Amino acid sequence: MTGRNQMGGVLSPVITPFKADYSPDISKWIAQCRWLLSQNVGLAVFGTNSEANSLSVEERMDMLDALVGAGLDPARMMPGTASCALTDSVRATAHAVKLGVGGVLMLPPFYYKGVTDEGLFRCFAEVIERVGDDRLRIYLYHIPPVSQVPIPLGLIERLLKAYPGIVAGVKDSSGDWSNTKAMLEAFPGWGVFSGNELVLLKNMRGGGVGCISATANINPAAIHRLYDQWESPEAERMQGEVNALREFMQGFPMIPALKSTVAHYGGDPEWNRLRPPLVELSGEEQKSLLEGLRRFDFAMPGLAAKAGAAD
Amino acid sequence: MTGRNQMGGVLSPVITPFKADYSPDISKWIAQCRWLLSQNVGLAVFGTNSEANSLSVEERMDMLDALVGAGLDPARMMPGTASCALTDSVRATAHAVKLGVGGVLMLPPFYYKGVTDEGLFRCFAEVIERVGDDRLRIYLYHIPPVSQVPIPLGLIERLLKAYPGIVAGVKDSSGDWSNTKAMLEAFPGWGVFSGNELVLLKNMRGGGVGCISATANINPAAIHRLYDQWESPEAERMQGEVNALREFMQGFPMIPALKSTVAHYGGDPEWNRLRPPLVELSGEEQKSLLEGLRRFDFAMPGLAAKAGAAD
Repeated sequence: MTGRNQMGGVLSPVITPFKADYSPDISKWIAQCRWLLSQNVGLAVFGTNSEANSLSVEERMDMLDALVGAGLDPARMMPGTASCALTDSVRATAHAVKLGVGGVLMLPPFYYKGVTDEGLFRCFAEVIERVGDDRLRIYLYHIPPVSQVPIPLGLIERLLKAYPGIVAGVKDSSGDWSNTKAMLEAFPGWGVFSGNELVLLKNMRGGGVGCISATANINPAAIHRLYDQWESPEAERMQGEVNALREFMQGFPMIPALKSTVAHYGGDPEWNRLRPPLVELSGEEQKSLLEGLRRFDFAMPGLAAKAGAAD
Repeated sequence: MTGRNQMGGVLSPVITPFKADYSPDISKWIAQCRWLLSQNVGLAVFGTNSEANSLSVEERMDMLDALVGAGLDPARMMPGTASCALTDSVRATAHAVKLGVGGVLMLPPFYYKGVTDEGLFRCFAEVIERVGDDRLRIYLYHIPPVSQVPIPLGLIERLLKAYPGIVAGVKDSSGDWSNTKAMLEAFPGWGVFSGNELVLLKNMRGGGVGCISATANINPAAIHRLYDQWESPEAERMQGEVNALREFMQGFPMIPALKSTVAHYGGDPEWNRLRPPLVELSGEEQKSLLEGLRRFDFAMPGLAAKAGAAD
């Protein structure tokens, strides 16, 4: 059941910069991805925090071509490739595998609610069969608070039986530790990523492989350090430190708050832009965010250094 | 505020036949659409019951090309053209308007939950501005039980102020009559379709323009008769009759039950197929459906005649 070439560590659902016409600013995005890799954080591009579902399949494929074309290591990439339409998921997944990505993160189709496990199984199975490539590594994306379509344990079990190795792991963004724990216990040695760093230490101690976290966009080094030294006596302290920033950020709408942070510390207000239906922080929220972030100076050297800015 | 060239009457979110490889069976679909038009029912193709969100934008555009190319009247079509991605919605909407459709049915972007009215306004406004065609008629698709993203009255008001005429109406699939009533009262003369025929009479009496209903796929003539004769003394009786079939159908998962019905009365088992993540009825459900449908023989002459089949 253990995936071959299993991915692990800390990955960031990379936020997507947009130009004034809401088209993705690809060169700015590549620079951000490059910086994250320099912080030892992998690239879960086209995640929820990337506004990926606000991008067409073509836009995402063009971006991935550009990212790999710029020389970044595809083995460190786990793009989101799922859509509501089976045909779209097949197309984007086949494209990503061809580029040599380490894995893909797959949402269930999320328009219809209350769908059966049988229907979800067929959907994932069709993608796997149609892509038909042994290099495919699927990480199931369980995020019921947003998708409203959970990926239950019974479905995972069936997929692992049918496609061992291919179904390589999961990102558990349920926000429910008991669910992550149940996955760790049910599928030992499997690629379980927690959906944020708040439970990274617990996840590693339980046999998980890392985390894929929104706040890795702004706090990559410290989260990676915790991952890297999870067995050290300092791990609990490090966990407490990354938690403090995470918990502060959770007081704001996450995606615009991440963008505001990067805009401010990177000295580039263009980063504040979101594609509809998401909107930027209000002036008041932004003020309160930036004031509060001052006490987390430790988290920002990477971003600040990148832009040559000092706050 | 009243839309020019306003659509009205009964429309069917036409179910989509699939071949064994899950590709849409376009010629079968066109025949079904032609039959619905012969029953005085318009074509809300690519609705929820059409499994439209399981189709890619390209598949939907190809199908619409074929439908118009086959000589069916585009003025009687209200295709669903919205996706989660702004760019996809613009592309599909512009394409439909170019083909001369009577209107388009637009879901809000439905991946992110709890989005702001401002974000939804920007999304619809961007589509309208980018399509940039005076012929565009948008019917907002309010279906919170599935999309989980409602279209509140305040948003409608703002859209109507900014784009009078273009924002031509709504399909209210909330299943909540008090919401439909509030729309009728807030926007007199506007194009309010109820989301099913159960409240068609109430909707017409309140100033609405018709209904867009799943069960119009199998009971088009009777629902159209009720629409056509809503002011007659027989209207209450007709309402009761269409309700009986609707309420019976609601005891089953709607989309596979519609397909099973058409498969049986049309003598074509291929109609039973759904694209994942949806699944066909179980053998037991199908048996119970077909047994129960016998008492609704009145509803089936169209379908039966079409296939030359007798049950």
